[in-house]
Amino acid sequence: MTGSNEDSALLGGIYNSKKKTRTFTWRLLLEVGLVVAIVLAFLCPWKPATGGATSPKVDVNKKKNVIFLVTDGMGPQSVGLARSFRQFRDGLPIDDILTIDKHFIGTSRTRSNNSFVTDSAAGATAFACGLKSYNGAIGVDPEKNPCGTILEALKLQGYMTGLVVTTRLTDATPACFSAHVDYRYQEDMIAQQQIGEYPLGRMVDLMIGGGGCHYNGNCRADGRNLVKEYSDTWNHVSTREEFDLLNEGHNVTLPLLALLSDGELPYEIDRSPKHFPSLAEEAKVALNALAEATKDSDKGFFLMIESSHIDFFGHQNDPAGQAREVLHYDTVFQEVMKFIDSTDVETVAISTSDHETGGLALSRQVSPAYPDYLWYPEVLLNSTHSGEFLAHLLFDYYQSQSSDDTPALTSYITKQVVENLMGITDWTQTDIDRIMTNIMNVNELMYVLNDMISVRAQLGWSTHGHSAIDVNIYAYTNSPAIEEQLKHNGAYDGLSGNHENIEIGRFMESLTGVNLDHVSLLLKKTNHKPEVVKSDFNVNSYHVY
Amino acid sequence: MTGSNEDSALLGGIYNSKKKTRTFTWRLLLEVGLVVAIVLAFLCPWKPATGGATSPKVDVNKKKNVIFLVTDGMGPQSVGLARSFRQFRDGLPIDDILTIDKHFIGTSRTRSNNSFVTDSAAGATAFACGLKSYNGAIGVDPEKNPCGTILEALKLQGYMTGLVVTTRLTDATPACFSAHVDYRYQEDMIAQQQIGEYPLGRMVDLMIGGGGCHYNGNCRADGRNLVKEYSDTWNHVSTREEFDLLNEGHNVTLPLLALLSDGELPYEIDRSPKHFPSLAEEAKVALNALAEATKDSDKGFFLMIESSHIDFFGHQNDPAGQAREVLHYDTVFQEVMKFIDSTDVETVAISTSDHETGGLALSRQVSPAYPDYLWYPEVLLNSTHSGEFLAHLLFDYYQSQSSDDTPALTSYITKQVVENLMGITDWTQTDIDRIMTNIMNVNELMYVLNDMISVRAQLGWSTHGHSAIDVNIYAYTNSPAIEEQLKHNGAYDGLSGNHENIEIGRFMESLTGVNLDHVSLLLKKTNHKPEVVKSDFNVNSYHVY
Repeated sequence: MTGSNEDSALLGGIYNSKKKTRTFTWRLLLEVGLVVAIVLAFLCPWKPATGGATSPKVDVNKKKNVIFLVTDGMGPQSVGLARSFRQFRDGLPIDDILTIDKHFIGTSRTRSNNSFVTDSAAGATAFACGLKSYNGAIGVDPEKNPCGTILEALKLQGYMTGLVVTTRLTDATPACFSAHVDYRYQEDMIAQQQIGEYPLGRMVDLMIGGGGCHYNGNCRADGRNLVKEYSDTWNHVSTREEFDLLNEGHNVTLPLLALLSDGELPYEIDRSPKHFPSLAEEAKVALNALAEATKDSDKGFFLMIESSHIDFFGHQNDPAGQAREVLHYDTVFQEVMKFIDSTDVETVAISTSDHETGGLALSRQVSPAYPDYLWYPEVLLNSTHSGEFLAHLLFDYYQSQSSDDTPALTSYITKQVVENLMGITDWTQTDIDRIMTNIMNVNELMYVLNDMISVRAQLGWSTHGHSAIDVNIYAYTNSPAIEEQLKHNGAYDGLSGNHENIEIGRFMESLTGVNLDHVSLLLKKTNHKPEVVKSDFNVNSYHVY
Repeated sequence: MTGSNEDSALLGGIYNSKKKTRTFTWRLLLEVGLVVAIVLAFLCPWKPATGGATSPKVDVNKKKNVIFLVTDGMGPQSVGLARSFRQFRDGLPIDDILTIDKHFIGTSRTRSNNSFVTDSAAGATAFACGLKSYNGAIGVDPEKNPCGTILEALKLQGYMTGLVVTTRLTDATPACFSAHVDYRYQEDMIAQQQIGEYPLGRMVDLMIGGGGCHYNGNCRADGRNLVKEYSDTWNHVSTREEFDLLNEGHNVTLPLLALLSDGELPYEIDRSPKHFPSLAEEAKVALNALAEATKDSDKGFFLMIESSHIDFFGHQNDPAGQAREVLHYDTVFQEVMKFIDSTDVETVAISTSDHETGGLALSRQVSPAYPDYLWYPEVLLNSTHSGEFLAHLLFDYYQSQSSDDTPALTSYITKQVVENLMGITDWTQTDIDRIMTNIMNVNELMYVLNDMISVRAQLGWSTHGHSAIDVNIYAYTNSPAIEEQLKHNGAYDGLSGNHENIEIGRFMESLTGVNLDHVSLLLKKTNHKPEVVKSDFNVNSYHVY
């Protein structure tokens, strides 16, 4: 096969698209078809279900919605924490479980290409591209070549696409589906690519989350205001009021760019519903908007939803915040299930974590005496805010006070923060001394406050970073054929059992019949560089399989 | 139904067995059969498979072997630790996995009746009796009534039964299958019951493990030598030489009592093959002996195998020991699979943990700087013994030296222990000071040595006790019908998905068609007391369903 034929076949004709006067002949169509078939036979990782003769088969050509949910940093112990916290809070029996527990099907091995402990960038690249890359990699392979993502592959197929997060839309997880840069900190460039400044053009139809400053210029090195520059293309939403006008997704014109904060959206434990929607509300808008936008299409949508802050609470070792965040995620999953139950379109939701964060373990026993294995969920319930919020509150108060009013400061710490807001009445002088010692350092102060909660609840953390524990995979579908396929435990044809994280991306590929490697080859032709490549190359009218 | 009829039905006729001159009439048989059927309909938790019309069904009456494996204290991170350790040691690719990984099917929620964090006694009672009890409970329910165990139920059905462990046979896990006492520390009584001093009589046919002193009197409060007293019944083995004469199980006369140590068997990392067999060797003997003893029977065997010391290393926070112990368990599982592949009898192996121990997490990052996520498996590989072994070595050396020879002691610590045996060449004066400070306290000394390994390998532990994280369930079978049944995720009719630990016991019950609650009712009639009840009540010729 010659080079040009090969290109033609691999790219499904895209590369020849510049020849605008091209006339297709039957002979050429046959040739191309044959070559495509041969290449697909070699590259396509999808294998038909091998179940019983009566098992339904997944029809890759049938209209589908794929909803991929990422619980950043949620390990198996975080789920147990939330379960037990809810049992206590709501007076439920000791065998009461979360909704996700009922849909647990397998586990994922999370390591990256260059580290036993992955970061979120390599983790999300594994899901998006179906390959292992290095920590920090955003949609690029170990050699820093851009790799085709499931979002791009499906967009090129005619799907509508969306990203919903509570962190910055330019943070690692959403970025890996919608951008290709060498390092995760290149958030300005990620924003540009997401908005459409990339050879493939605009791949995303809906974005809801934080990180607005990388779009509106408030924190961009180049000071550009992408929101303004692209106001003819993207519909922009930035306040709770504007968000509410979207009417749960029934009043949305795509593409939608909902930048609800310059930085992070608030944590669930701190969130004021007056000013910010929850992740569940955001997910609902996205699901309905994408469903309506595709209702007359023979292609459905791909939506990535990330519960981003479970990871933050892991890094901060904040159990009171994490319990609420995981519980809220359970309602997000319920919202997705409700949508799936209500639609006639074959839909699957797959939920997993990129890694665990914090090395959480319940309970904590450090003495050599035979343990009592105590655990006090009420300590978490009594604390009303995240440690981060409280540390900032204390720091701000300290900054605002005259330096010699120690009694006022001590009273503020003990009465207002420790007793009222944290619900700790058995504080000790050592606690207060630790707070005072660290009052000029918000980060250390936060650790101290969170540790006061953890010690009293009798739970332990072994790190402020990520861990290498296997994480859970959950799934839900309205399709008997997909359900059957999910139960398989082969490398690329099911999600039950224990899997490499890349197999989750490859599973989405197999369900939808696209080919991520073809998209990678297409991207290779764009001469990706760490710098943004501008191009008028029009790819939107072609499909890549 | 009158009380006596009810008894008769519930106990399958056993209670009437004292009437030795009883003459069965057809009418009575019909009556009893009807009552049994009604009671079974109410109590029997087994439900037929609900799979496709072509799915094979488990025939509860077909001859079966049930092998239940417990990895005491092994959480999901311990598996990842062993995987990565082996990849490093053997130069394997980064996606190389253990044998158990290929047979992972679900997870188990481990809490006990009275604690979010279970102990091994409540954990094993959950497996054995299919009910939640309190921490410390050995085969008794929350009201301290003895509960029928899967081992007893199957023995009463005509199965042969065995227990193989590396800890004391009187320790919690094996005890819960074969004894009923109020607290786990009643090990003398547990030994008596296991040997046959209980109303149900002898329920175990084969025991291999440690804890000999509770049998031979070396540590019994009453000084009795049960080995001698029961030498007419039990065949006794106590040395490596005698063990080898068992010829891999082909030269065994049951019942067999192999007490290979007065206390614990050695840890795998410290074990001298000259003096002690491995758990895999013990399992092989048990499998072959039980298979041969049942080869002409229409009933198979029940064998419980415990990898006991993974838990010990969790308590001790010893990663070098635990990596080897988990890896050895993988070969035990392989040994079991080999047996299953070789037998014509329908056989299933189910493997799970009672709980995690230690709150292990890889890696360990305690600084606020962005983490490198480093992990050094070579640190574990370079250490040649368990921390417990090394602490005793140091302590013994210290005791044997004259108190003023500090240079000799320092040299012994740095050269012999830290450099030669632990493989640590970058030791600091702080390390040596910590060792010196704790040299009179073996336990603290062990923690110091293990921490020197953990810090350098960059892994963390959050507790010296158990944790409440969900643990893995693995399974293997040569039976398509059982395989199909395993894939179900209902409460009592499958093991895929997320389960309460009690459902694992109930699953074994459903596969074999026995009824644990019937055995509990039978035991109730024995007037169980914390004291041993002696009785000449002969139950062996009756079956309980």
